[in-house]
Amino acid sequence: MKIAVLSVGSEILAGRILNRDLLLIADFLRKFGLRVTREITVKDEVEEIVETLMNLKNFDIIFITGGLGPTSDDVTKKAIARFFNVDLESSEMVLKLIEERLKDLGVEFLPVHRNYALIPRGAKILRNDAGLAPGMVFSTDKGILISLPGPPREVESLLPQLEGLLEKYKRGETYLKTVKTFGLRESEIYDRLKDCAWLEKAGFYPSIYGVDIRIETERKDELDEILIELKDKLGESIYGYDNETLEMAFGKVLKERDLTVSTAESCSGGLLANLITNVSGSSEYYIGGIIAYHNRIKVDFLGVSQDVLKKYGAVSEPTARQMAEGIRKLFDTDVGLSTTGIAGPTGGTPQKPVGLVYMGFSFRGEVHVIKKIFKGNRLEIKKQAAYTIMDFARRYLLKKL
Amino acid sequence: MKIAVLSVGSEILAGRILNRDLLLIADFLRKFGLRVTREITVKDEVEEIVETLMNLKNFDIIFITGGLGPTSDDVTKKAIARFFNVDLESSEMVLKLIEERLKDLGVEFLPVHRNYALIPRGAKILRNDAGLAPGMVFSTDKGILISLPGPPREVESLLPQLEGLLEKYKRGETYLKTVKTFGLRESEIYDRLKDCAWLEKAGFYPSIYGVDIRIETERKDELDEILIELKDKLGESIYGYDNETLEMAFGKVLKERDLTVSTAESCSGGLLANLITNVSGSSEYYIGGIIAYHNRIKVDFLGVSQDVLKKYGAVSEPTARQMAEGIRKLFDTDVGLSTTGIAGPTGGTPQKPVGLVYMGFSFRGEVHVIKKIFKGNRLEIKKQAAYTIMDFARRYLLKKL
Repeated sequence: MKIAVLSVGSEILAGRILNRDLLLIADFLRKFGLRVTREITVKDEVEEIVETLMNLKNFDIIFITGGLGPTSDDVTKKAIARFFNVDLESSEMVLKLIEERLKDLGVEFLPVHRNYALIPRGAKILRNDAGLAPGMVFSTDKGILISLPGPPREVESLLPQLEGLLEKYKRGETYLKTVKTFGLRESEIYDRLKDCAWLEKAGFYPSIYGVDIRIETERKDELDEILIELKDKLGESIYGYDNETLEMAFGKVLKERDLTVSTAESCSGGLLANLITNVSGSSEYYIGGIIAYHNRIKVDFLGVSQDVLKKYGAVSEPTARQMAEGIRKLFDTDVGLSTTGIAGPTGGTPQKPVGLVYMGFSFRGEVHVIKKIFKGNRLEIKKQAAYTIMDFARRYLLKKL
Repeated sequence: MKIAVLSVGSEILAGRILNRDLLLIADFLRKFGLRVTREITVKDEVEEIVETLMNLKNFDIIFITGGLGPTSDDVTKKAIARFFNVDLESSEMVLKLIEERLKDLGVEFLPVHRNYALIPRGAKILRNDAGLAPGMVFSTDKGILISLPGPPREVESLLPQLEGLLEKYKRGETYLKTVKTFGLRESEIYDRLKDCAWLEKAGFYPSIYGVDIRIETERKDELDEILIELKDKLGESIYGYDNETLEMAFGKVLKERDLTVSTAESCSGGLLANLITNVSGSSEYYIGGIIAYHNRIKVDFLGVSQDVLKKYGAVSEPTARQMAEGIRKLFDTDVGLSTTGIAGPTGGTPQKPVGLVYMGFSFRGEVHVIKKIFKGNRLEIKKQAAYTIMDFARRYLLKKL
């Protein structure tokens, strides 16, 4: 089965952004045991798109994403019309959908909005509940051509409408699981797994935030066995599976133990709180936090002593300790977390280089402080600080309670 | 000039990883005024590669990355040989390079290493100082085909060897600027610009966080004129250019006016502070903030009155007002920003639906509260809330001071 995803737009060609539409389509296809066999990005030019569609004539399923906007640089519909040698016609049905949606959004109907309703003849319309441009399905000599808008959330909302259509292409399902780890290097993981017979079924995707291990098998029981062996070999370094994030795993541990948490952040500047509150339901355990960017906030609110600041500085073990303790007491929570460090790119010294971060964990009278020197840019250092203290708290509570 | 990057390998087809080789090649080409016009990924199968190379016959420059390893699933060289209808031959020169490198690495020469030296006849060899597989350059009817290994660090080390070769393709530089806007929809922008003669040189990239307008011209003065006209037509909706973020623009406005800011966040949960502190140097104007997730924090620290909470609820205009005022006074800053709303996906009611957010701005005795009903998922609602209040503050201070 030959399946292509053709993306229209110049942004991806610069190599700077992930093709989220491709990811969504690939994940959706997996449910039918199907996978993308070719992926192409072209500039938003009619000739480029038509030429590429010609090249894909022997493909069973072609997805084409993007280029459906109302402006002159959105040329996908023109290209599809040229490819099938049909006209673009204004669809009353689509026009009504657009009018309804704009009304819902409280947006005035402008002449330019009419362009959304221009549809190549022969299209079957897919309703777009997340945006204005409808999706379209066409029959080709070999199979089908599916046109979707570019924004990922619109792709996401349109894909389910294709389920009936893809049913007839269905293949034996494959079984896929992503195992998410934090705290081990790729080489450490590889070393622990090097004698496993199934190693070739595993893909390793390391980033500075952890290593994802992707396992794909043809039998469900085989996948289950591999997962058990992985758990055995990697233990609590595995924090979750598939789309589970570290902040979700941390939240789960708190919720299961009926604990509350608060945060006192300096160098992570609100990121730790932001990650924790990205989890739906986090208001059950997250009470609040203080971002103590200026030292006077550390002193006046978190109870960091002037002495400590003078003697050890804001980026120090005692400061992290007092911050974690301070917020836990001030906000009356079970757990208090803190970060203080140098996120850079400026502000480093030989004694306290950029990347140096102290992270505090306070829990019922106990305080632990971790010291790390992280690599990376400002945002990467912030993120590693937030992940590291969340992961420490997660492991600690898992073991202790 | 038609330039393609063809990547060989199934990993990218799953959509989960960024094509780093593409990024490296695109950045390298920009120095010559060149850019990638098509990007393709195929499975590591000889037929797929040959078919795609056929489709690219009218391309001037083709990069093919990956599939040069010594194992049986590395098929790029076989495909190139088939495409040119030549044999694979063992190159003594390459064999020597491999032997030297293995010696340097302290790795024993194994029979499988011989495969690295199998080269399609007619190749010009590029020395690989970061790995074992050499790069190769071939002449095509139309131009050149360049084969590079897959690992990004090897691509990086090989690219400089192509400088002489690309010199003759060198183009006059083009002039590119991305104009970043917030607060206007794509259709509104288009409506304001629809009579501009240069409209076709503009690309529009909308997201729920704003619209980027990408302008590309062949002459510098033309670009400058367009930028002036854009500023004239879109005014303060333009917050920055190229890689400038809204939080940078906001920080600049504060810094220029020597103002300090603090944040009181409920629904945005630390994201607003996180964005502000993503900017290097933000400690000059950002003093700190409170994440008042639980209502008791709103009352005990920000001075939100029990009466207001009882009468209007936490998600209300008066609460947002008291939060913004409260943090400004508590942290003694010039500006106080607040957010309170329902980020979802649960917690909405008919009166207060998911997406309803009140955002407060307090400045020297004045307070303004914005009410919005945002669309999107939890993270998107948080992000829109943070952006909206930052943008409001930016515009207000620009006008006022």
